[in-house]
Amino acid sequence: MPWKMARRAERLNPSTIREILKVTERPGIISLAGGLPSADSFPVEAMAEASARVLREHPREALQYAASEGYAPLREWVVADLARHGLQADASQVLVTTGSQQGLDLVGKVLVDPGSEVAVESPTYLGALQAFNPYEPEFAAVEGDAEGPLPAALEAVRDARFLYLLPNFQNPSGRCLSAARRDALAERALALGLPIVEDNPYGELWFDAPPPPPIAARCAEQAVYLGSFSKVLAPGLRLGYVVAPKALYPKLLQAKQAADLHTPGFNQRIVYEVVKALERHLPAGCRWAVPAGGMFFWVELPAALDATALLPRAVDAGVAYVPGAPFFAGDGAGHANTLRLSFVTVPPERIEAGVAALGAVLKTALGGVLTEVLA
Amino acid sequence: MPWKMARRAERLNPSTIREILKVTERPGIISLAGGLPSADSFPVEAMAEASARVLREHPREALQYAASEGYAPLREWVVADLARHGLQADASQVLVTTGSQQGLDLVGKVLVDPGSEVAVESPTYLGALQAFNPYEPEFAAVEGDAEGPLPAALEAVRDARFLYLLPNFQNPSGRCLSAARRDALAERALALGLPIVEDNPYGELWFDAPPPPPIAARCAEQAVYLGSFSKVLAPGLRLGYVVAPKALYPKLLQAKQAADLHTPGFNQRIVYEVVKALERHLPAGCRWAVPAGGMFFWVELPAALDATALLPRAVDAGVAYVPGAPFFAGDGAGHANTLRLSFVTVPPERIEAGVAALGAVLKTALGGVLTEVLA
Repeated sequence: MPWKMARRAERLNPSTIREILKVTERPGIISLAGGLPSADSFPVEAMAEASARVLREHPREALQYAASEGYAPLREWVVADLARHGLQADASQVLVTTGSQQGLDLVGKVLVDPGSEVAVESPTYLGALQAFNPYEPEFAAVEGDAEGPLPAALEAVRDARFLYLLPNFQNPSGRCLSAARRDALAERALALGLPIVEDNPYGELWFDAPPPPPIAARCAEQAVYLGSFSKVLAPGLRLGYVVAPKALYPKLLQAKQAADLHTPGFNQRIVYEVVKALERHLPAGCRWAVPAGGMFFWVELPAALDATALLPRAVDAGVAYVPGAPFFAGDGAGHANTLRLSFVTVPPERIEAGVAALGAVLKTALGGVLTEVLA
Repeated sequence: MPWKMARRAERLNPSTIREILKVTERPGIISLAGGLPSADSFPVEAMAEASARVLREHPREALQYAASEGYAPLREWVVADLARHGLQADASQVLVTTGSQQGLDLVGKVLVDPGSEVAVESPTYLGALQAFNPYEPEFAAVEGDAEGPLPAALEAVRDARFLYLLPNFQNPSGRCLSAARRDALAERALALGLPIVEDNPYGELWFDAPPPPPIAARCAEQAVYLGSFSKVLAPGLRLGYVVAPKALYPKLLQAKQAADLHTPGFNQRIVYEVVKALERHLPAGCRWAVPAGGMFFWVELPAALDATALLPRAVDAGVAYVPGAPFFAGDGAGHANTLRLSFVTVPPERIEAGVAALGAVLKTALGGVLTEVLA
């Protein structure tokens, strides 16, 4: 064996979600597992027009090497869009990334030393755990309640390199932090000098009212904000962005350049054309967000049930979901009874059938557990 | 200052090339500096047709989340193309990356521990040094001659995690390794158990005869091979690939997933359509490579001259180049008199004017040096 792996490679592991999604690709399964946006919402016609225009009007620039920072007009658009959401930033703070997943990787690369602490919600986004993991942090779960992380709990993680938060319709829990909780968290973080990494892939997917302004708006100098076009336009272009304070931006930029030189310029120009076109075609005051609304239901089963162990039975019954344990930093102990249901990919009538099938499986399983207990 | 950087962030620095390119963007400068492929060679029409077709026929798949491994038909095409170049591989060994720069980052992430040795040619590709640097290796320059690295010199780096080689028209030196040297290097590497990372962005850019088959063809189980579509189609799509042995592939895949989930599926499908179309439109036996040939001239000035110090004078005279010192691992000491000229971006008649202007600057500088020595 000529290959000697880096120590950090031990922390790279197959994604539970990924491996499970392979099982759930069996035909006929009603998948409430993966978090794929509905393809019905992709603005295909606008994309086709934008692609044609970019290649007609600026083919040499769109297909050439480009700046690591990103396409300047798109960065300006991001600034204007963030201002509409209550976050003031300058284009010089915007770094376009290859999906917001890359933003997480760059943050980890620049801020995480082996053994340093990274504070997370519990549960939190599995992809963030995966992105940070190769940089060998110790994860610290911040205590929370139904409203989100507790401001008083930040004291315990004051030495963390940062607190990673997903305030809007969190994956996997669907939880959205109130304005008051955001205020209180920002105030505590400022008092403690605790940096915040705020991830917002789902903020545009609201039902009745938009979420409150970002936490970063309340503590801009010690916050990194990550945005994404994956959920509101289309994931297949892999386009996201990072907004960072001036103290951090140059290192993130250098890490970006080392990682992939720059995000495809062609894609950046297409997205810019599409967002501008969508703004033109909608009446003033309308938002161009896809009229979906959050993506996930978070379910806690009776404590005796193990969602991972039940998955094969659910799949046999024609329905799939994602077990919740991997969304917890550490080994997920004590959370075997949790699971995540996605409601964005499957049409409504099939969701109902899927949930009915799941209910039947759970009832049978619970019956079995009771029988065992009584035996 | 709430931000505490990771130790590895100290190794992230502004690219010398990048900073210099900013200077050379002054209007009227004949830039022999950057290595941008000529935009005249971009297959714009084929790209436009491919984009339209992909969005007409498979919009839902092209714009959706996709597999981290890459688009299966493109991976199959890569396998067929590599076979034409003498490298046998299986599609399960092909990982599509966001430019081959990302392949370098993933290799560093999976294989390099702080303090571990990475063997490189001297000079070598600056972007590779940048990609590996955050993983904190010690670089070891392998002794070479005009034909490339010396097989006997591999003994001295036998404990390196890998030897990074750019055998075809190297950036910055332009050097191409002979078949005999490739054989001898592979044989030594096999005997020593020294893994090889072979980077091939320029292999298709040959004038008279294609380069010999890859070194990886001679030691597949202990070689990683990196390919790119940037130089032969267009850099702005950011599309490259890694071919890895089965012992290494899963970790690279997991690192890829953590880094950006997947390379844009839209781009992968466009490139697949374009390469298939170009194959259809060319007579059998023709290669679809852009008929350029290498990209760089490597120049050694008289030892008394410092190419970095001379650059402002050259720019004042209307010509730009890249100083050679940053292409050496370490501080480039002893190589201040080297520089790289690119001949792919500027039209031939301007190249001549640029080289004439550079010659005048060098003559003046050399006169100054002589005057100093004589004074």
